[in-house]
Amino acid sequence: MRKLWGGRFVKRTDPLVERYTSSIAVDHRLAKYDVLGSIAHATMLGRCRIIPRREAGRLVTGLKAILRAIEEGRFRWDPSAEDIHTQIQAELAKRVGSTADLLHTARSRNDQVALDLRLYCRDAVGQLRDGVAQAQRALVELAAREDDVIIPGYTHLQRAQPILLAHHLLAYVEMLERDQERLADALKRINVLPLGAGALAGTSLPINRFKVATLLGFDRVSDNSIDAVSDRDFVAELLADLALVAVHLSRLAEDVILWATEEFGILSLDDAVATGSSLMPQKKNPDALELIRGQTGQAFGGLVSLLTVLKGLPLSYNRDLQWDKAALFGVVDGVGEALRVCERLLRHVRIRRARAQQLLAVDTICATDLAEHLVQRGVAFRQAHEIVGRLVRACEREGRRLRDFSLAELRRYDAHFDESARRRLDPRRSVELKRSWGSTNPRLVRQMIARWKARLKK
Amino acid sequence: MRKLWGGRFVKRTDPLVERYTSSIAVDHRLAKYDVLGSIAHATMLGRCRIIPRREAGRLVTGLKAILRAIEEGRFRWDPSAEDIHTQIQAELAKRVGSTADLLHTARSRNDQVALDLRLYCRDAVGQLRDGVAQAQRALVELAAREDDVIIPGYTHLQRAQPILLAHHLLAYVEMLERDQERLADALKRINVLPLGAGALAGTSLPINRFKVATLLGFDRVSDNSIDAVSDRDFVAELLADLALVAVHLSRLAEDVILWATEEFGILSLDDAVATGSSLMPQKKNPDALELIRGQTGQAFGGLVSLLTVLKGLPLSYNRDLQWDKAALFGVVDGVGEALRVCERLLRHVRIRRARAQQLLAVDTICATDLAEHLVQRGVAFRQAHEIVGRLVRACEREGRRLRDFSLAELRRYDAHFDESARRRLDPRRSVELKRSWGSTNPRLVRQMIARWKARLKK
Amino acid sequence: MRKLWGGRFVKRTDPLVERYTSSIAVDHRLAKYDVLGSIAHATMLGRCRIIPRREAGRLVTGLKAILRAIEEGRFRWDPSAEDIHTQIQAELAKRVGSTADLLHTARSRNDQVALDLRLYCRDAVGQLRDGVAQAQRALVELAAREDDVIIPGYTHLQRAQPILLAHHLLAYVEMLERDQERLADALKRINVLPLGAGALAGTSLPINRFKVATLLGFDRVSDNSIDAVSDRDFVAELLADLALVAVHLSRLAEDVILWATEEFGILSLDDAVATGSSLMPQKKNPDALELIRGQTGQAFGGLVSLLTVLKGLPLSYNRDLQWDKAALFGVVDGVGEALRVCERLLRHVRIRRARAQQLLAVDTICATDLAEHLVQRGVAFRQAHEIVGRLVRACEREGRRLRDFSLAELRRYDAHFDESARRRLDPRRSVELKRSWGSTNPRLVRQMIARWKARLKK
Amino acid sequence: MRKLWGGRFVKRTDPLVERYTSSIAVDHRLAKYDVLGSIAHATMLGRCRIIPRREAGRLVTGLKAILRAIEEGRFRWDPSAEDIHTQIQAELAKRVGSTADLLHTARSRNDQVALDLRLYCRDAVGQLRDGVAQAQRALVELAAREDDVIIPGYTHLQRAQPILLAHHLLAYVEMLERDQERLADALKRINVLPLGAGALAGTSLPINRFKVATLLGFDRVSDNSIDAVSDRDFVAELLADLALVAVHLSRLAEDVILWATEEFGILSLDDAVATGSSLMPQKKNPDALELIRGQTGQAFGGLVSLLTVLKGLPLSYNRDLQWDKAALFGVVDGVGEALRVCERLLRHVRIRRARAQQLLAVDTICATDLAEHLVQRGVAFRQAHEIVGRLVRACEREGRRLRDFSLAELRRYDAHFDESARRRLDPRRSVELKRSWGSTNPRLVRQMIARWKARLKK
Repeated sequence: MRKLWGGRFVKRTDPLVERYTSSIAVDHRLAKYDVLGSIAHATMLGRCRIIPRREAGRLVTGLKAILRAIEEGRFRWDPSAEDIHTQIQAELAKRVGSTADLLHTARSRNDQVALDLRLYCRDAVGQLRDGVAQAQRALVELAAREDDVIIPGYTHLQRAQPILLAHHLLAYVEMLERDQERLADALKRINVLPLGAGALAGTSLPINRFKVATLLGFDRVSDNSIDAVSDRDFVAELLADLALVAVHLSRLAEDVILWATEEFGILSLDDAVATGSSLMPQKKNPDALELIRGQTGQAFGGLVSLLTVLKGLPLSYNRDLQWDKAALFGVVDGVGEALRVCERLLRHVRIRRARAQQLLAVDTICATDLAEHLVQRGVAFRQAHEIVGRLVRACEREGRRLRDFSLAELRRYDAHFDESARRRLDPRRSVELKRSWGSTNPRLVRQMIARWKARLKK
Repeated sequence: MRKLWGGRFVKRTDPLVERYTSSIAVDHRLAKYDVLGSIAHATMLGRCRIIPRREAGRLVTGLKAILRAIEEGRFRWDPSAEDIHTQIQAELAKRVGSTADLLHTARSRNDQVALDLRLYCRDAVGQLRDGVAQAQRALVELAAREDDVIIPGYTHLQRAQPILLAHHLLAYVEMLERDQERLADALKRINVLPLGAGALAGTSLPINRFKVATLLGFDRVSDNSIDAVSDRDFVAELLADLALVAVHLSRLAEDVILWATEEFGILSLDDAVATGSSLMPQKKNPDALELIRGQTGQAFGGLVSLLTVLKGLPLSYNRDLQWDKAALFGVVDGVGEALRVCERLLRHVRIRRARAQQLLAVDTICATDLAEHLVQRGVAFRQAHEIVGRLVRACEREGRRLRDFSLAELRRYDAHFDESARRRLDPRRSVELKRSWGSTNPRLVRQMIARWKARLKK
Repeated sequence: MRKLWGGRFVKRTDPLVERYTSSIAVDHRLAKYDVLGSIAHATMLGRCRIIPRREAGRLVTGLKAILRAIEEGRFRWDPSAEDIHTQIQAELAKRVGSTADLLHTARSRNDQVALDLRLYCRDAVGQLRDGVAQAQRALVELAAREDDVIIPGYTHLQRAQPILLAHHLLAYVEMLERDQERLADALKRINVLPLGAGALAGTSLPINRFKVATLLGFDRVSDNSIDAVSDRDFVAELLADLALVAVHLSRLAEDVILWATEEFGILSLDDAVATGSSLMPQKKNPDALELIRGQTGQAFGGLVSLLTVLKGLPLSYNRDLQWDKAALFGVVDGVGEALRVCERLLRHVRIRRARAQQLLAVDTICATDLAEHLVQRGVAFRQAHEIVGRLVRACEREGRRLRDFSLAELRRYDAHFDESARRRLDPRRSVELKRSWGSTNPRLVRQMIARWKARLKK
Repeated sequence: MRKLWGGRFVKRTDPLVERYTSSIAVDHRLAKYDVLGSIAHATMLGRCRIIPRREAGRLVTGLKAILRAIEEGRFRWDPSAEDIHTQIQAELAKRVGSTADLLHTARSRNDQVALDLRLYCRDAVGQLRDGVAQAQRALVELAAREDDVIIPGYTHLQRAQPILLAHHLLAYVEMLERDQERLADALKRINVLPLGAGALAGTSLPINRFKVATLLGFDRVSDNSIDAVSDRDFVAELLADLALVAVHLSRLAEDVILWATEEFGILSLDDAVATGSSLMPQKKNPDALELIRGQTGQAFGGLVSLLTVLKGLPLSYNRDLQWDKAALFGVVDGVGEALRVCERLLRHVRIRRARAQQLLAVDTICATDLAEHLVQRGVAFRQAHEIVGRLVRACEREGRRLRDFSLAELRRYDAHFDESARRRLDPRRSVELKRSWGSTNPRLVRQMIARWKARLKK
């Protein structure tokens, strides 16, 4: 395929070097965006009379035909092309002949690839935000469906206090909401037009960058041509945001994997979302959740990869930047899939209510309630903590439960205990008596569910 | 020191385990924030009548005295304390006796440390943004001072097109501006009150979290107690932002290191910001810039560190989270320093104008200008590129410069060349003829300098 | 403090730059190694008559006095020194006057710091290998003490097949043994003398590097002076090895954290190695294990940090390399501590045998044994797997255990079942019938324990 | 395609989950190794009479036919298969019917995939070591060809001392030699047979693992079945080794990129290994070298990726481990290619000897030689350094070269200067007078070249 350069070169490129520097195996995914960018560019070139309007029209027609081919899946990328820009240029030449030679006027591949990548990222953000919202919806719906289930809340993976399962699920909705916000923030810095920066210095031709920005739906036009071609911050920021999405999914996966063990038993996965073993006939494994947990590896690796590439690069464009895409595409696909799978899994879990109740039977989980009982009766918190601590120790030593202690016995530990004390040992009362904002109080949690439902409707 | 827990424990903690789990060597830096948080908490406890108002008053007085000690540098952290919270509790007990036992009412170290860390991050963001602005100012001032210097712009570290040095410097101002925006965005997610989440479930005591938020200047109150204690997104986001600041500084450092070589020679560093060699008497080395370049190592490492810790953690609080601070503090300090040093260095560079001019003498750097000349005369860009490419090849083969070609000779390459062609080989004209928005055109660059000056005044 | 350079400099270094480039806050830890290296260097300079022997003797005497001060904890590092080399040079001058000026003959800080760091790493590897061996011993001893305990073996955190607890513990001994091997391999590349490389080119003075190598116990002398000063592979390799040690400890920590939950309940931690909660009186948390799990953050971060620094550095020495130490020292300390804490914890766990037995009561864990029973009677494995899979499905549907199926019932699934089939459902028989090398067969496991005990005795 | 499991499952797997958990798009590259492993396994099953010998023979015949198809490129992987093991099982069933059902006897996918991956890694190490050796050869040959070229040696990218270009190139040969050693060390831990571990516990069937090891050329048999299926250390170690190979290549790339600038001009790249610009007709860019520099991104990312996956995984096998391959395959391919391209590039550089000489004209580069001259005349090194430093300062101030100072003038700086002093200012004499082992002395460097030539012949 004819190169986009070569006039000054005497020798042919070594095939090994040609293959190594070729990027089409990766950047063919930019085909659509490359064509969209070229359509806007050609339109502008014509309107600004940099090329004849009729020729501009022919370019646009040719490009639109290529776009259709791409959208209909008829476009095949050609491994022999140096990159997707070169292939599309060649495709165009097939359709409009030497008119194609006008397209690259006032443009370099440096600003062109920056444009393509920004268009791709803009779409990716849109799809990822949908994926996040879908996962949020699945969480809220599960929370709504099971809004009266109480489970042990854990700290350090030790039973801590009774909480509503719904409250726990909503914690993940909060995390994903921050992901939404971060993605929206990233978009502000993605949606800036780099085209017109040329190789690095701008151009002496009378282009109109604001026109191109309008045609392509960009909010802003980059203010510095050198920055425009050497900037990949927007990719790094997107990858950092996705690393956090992956973290959130990995934490959720870990929770569900634990809950799905026979030992915890808080939920079970439907056959449709579990897998078996080639050796052990009885196995039903949460493989998809484990893959989601491991998705962090891909996401962190992709982020480190790009940061490494950027480290210490002199301005302006250097070919090292070609490494931006491999990491990005993989992570966008991977995290996007993980979000969808996560949503699907949440729709296929069955809460094992009886087991949840059983886990709450060890009533030391209400020890903090007992301490708050004392505080409400005027005991300083640290004393209350100490007193109940001694009671717990007695339970362990004597193999008893807190509720086995009579009021009289309790009073031997502290005189402030009264008859209502023992009622504080009921997990349901424990959550119902919570009153602070953001707590696991059932009324507050139902309010939150309603709020999220409304918000996620849009 | 008396522990904040222990009632249920029979045995003393093993000293090795105690030392390993102690965090005070790191978290003592939170002392100020811990006290500030406690003052607001105590105030609220009093106003809400959870503890007697008089006792609340005594707590606040005691805490303010500790705060003064911290601010005046009289506070020494105690390596035998488990963490800073424990030490401050003990300090308070020394001052107000058993009243101190009231302070931890309706609070857990889980929400307390989350609060402290958010207060720290809020301050850190403020200081970092100042540091970024200072570096931006130094860049803009250097650009203003040297606004007529032309240097080669590089792509692939090969001379590409003439650019204004000021334009190159402003590219860094743009990058740092994105850092400013990202830090401002991060602040939205930092400035949320976690206190009142308790260990994970909230509390049955009638606390008023909105009151505390107002007292401490928080924009929002966290909506989910489980999320509040297990969330470290805000730290990861801050570290990701700082990784990009470090990237930008490393790229600037690389440029300046290159420019300061004898080979490039575009600038020299003042003795005051260079260092020597213990062996080679003639050396003058840009050590500080190399350290800035290497700061990326610390920043990326810190980010990876926290992401690794968060990966796959079940909710809610787990002690793994204690690892958040070591990475964070180091990177905040390090990047903050690097920004200040960078600013200082920029104020100590001398531009070697004669050398800059010498670098532009090889006039193939204006080859693109020659091609645009042809385009303006109706030649399709790809042809123009090809024609000029052949001219460059001739230069190389014959050891000539482009300006050595007579018009007649040029016309042998293409008939569209006219007398103005050769004038396009002047680097100053090259920049002056640029007209696209964001280009290196001197008028546009001066406009940008003025805009930045105004914006950075605030 | 007098700098080791400066003759050519006119101005004083800017204090901010001086502070930023100072490394003593980190490299003071090299003090001992710096002195040891200097003693060998001075000795060689004297023997080779590069400096007078008497003066060499005075240098050595002065240096030995400094060494004693360091070893006795009397040496205080001086924050105003540029680095530890400068401070020790100054200390020496205080003791031996201008004779000290002879010490830096035929030496640069470039080869000097490379030497110090290699000496440090050599010691660190020794200590780390001891730490690994101690952890291995604790695992083997626990395995030996509990060598008849059977627990569920897990894949995907679902019960898979009965295994000996000892067998599981020995899996960690294997992992740590690979760490031992890797550390031993790293030492081959650490224990190479760089001194004598000068700044980068070697020297014209008649030094004897082999002499120095012998004095300091190095196996080899570096063969290329440029490589000698710019190489930090040995640090990266050590950090990579420690990243894997941290991985192993994190996996062990995860297992023990899970086993210590009420839900699994396979073991409990002694009070001496657990910690409590400031809010919840009943909590007993495995904090130390969580910190060990999080140590991976530090270790991965340190590795990424150094790799980032090394990326794209031109030869030979660049100041970026100063960043090697911060990461290294932290990780060596941290992983070393984690190993010791891990050992301590293993000595404080109590196996809950009754609970372990209870976990094995669900006899589908022996489904594979049943399938192997069929294979031994001539059924193709895939059929056997299918048949037993249907049996398991029946168990689930009907709420039965496998042992509830009579032989007649079993035969309805496959005619090959005979009376011994139902005996295969006993977990103890399951492990006893294993016969492959490396399997969980009790006789083989006891053999392994004996082998490890013998091996770890050294 | 028929799954390797399923007897107990009632519902079909959800298609989204099925796609997400499918690994064949990645692991199809293990096809050859999977078949090789199965051939050995089937052979052993037959010899041990676990399956009839005739059936074993049929399995082997069928598998060999598949192997031929793979080797001849006729094997197409099937996206609908769950993984490559499943597809090969299905292929086998097509060829040998229900006999295929015997193959999976005494084997799980857990030990099977561990085997396949180890076989792959063993091959990869072999190929990578060849690639490293090829790059070493190209460096040595260039060094031999240009063994008399002197260039400035740099520290801090400032000219430091004259060195032989060959000496600089050999520094890279040393680095790569350490890579060779590390890869050889890694192989010791790769070349261990995991097959026979079953899912995690071993088997009750009378398999002979040592037989399989012999058939497949393994040095050892794994000693613990749990470790055998959960260990991916060998992948992490290989990735860590490749991260360092990538570091070395990135440093070499950086050096060559710098040398290829017009500013340094030490060498030029042949057209065959350079690329042009789509906008700027004069450009000749070292793109391949920049991509090699950026390869560090992929390599570091891959390493972080796997470490992240392994962090905190409980034993034994978890599906997270499926993420091991994506990172590994990419990095093995990428670094392998980079090595080959690097070798090719080194064969296409032209040293610009005249320019190299020109760079040495600034004779302060010999300042250290002058200082050593004084030391040889009895001046203490620190005094000598100071004296020459003042001379250099005078040069700068007065715009002179050192050689412009007469002996009389020199003596005004120090009386020990004699007539031979000024001869020390010749770069060639500078390298020739070096005498320390590993120095840039031409005789020593030629010795090294000869040694490397001999060593690399094998």
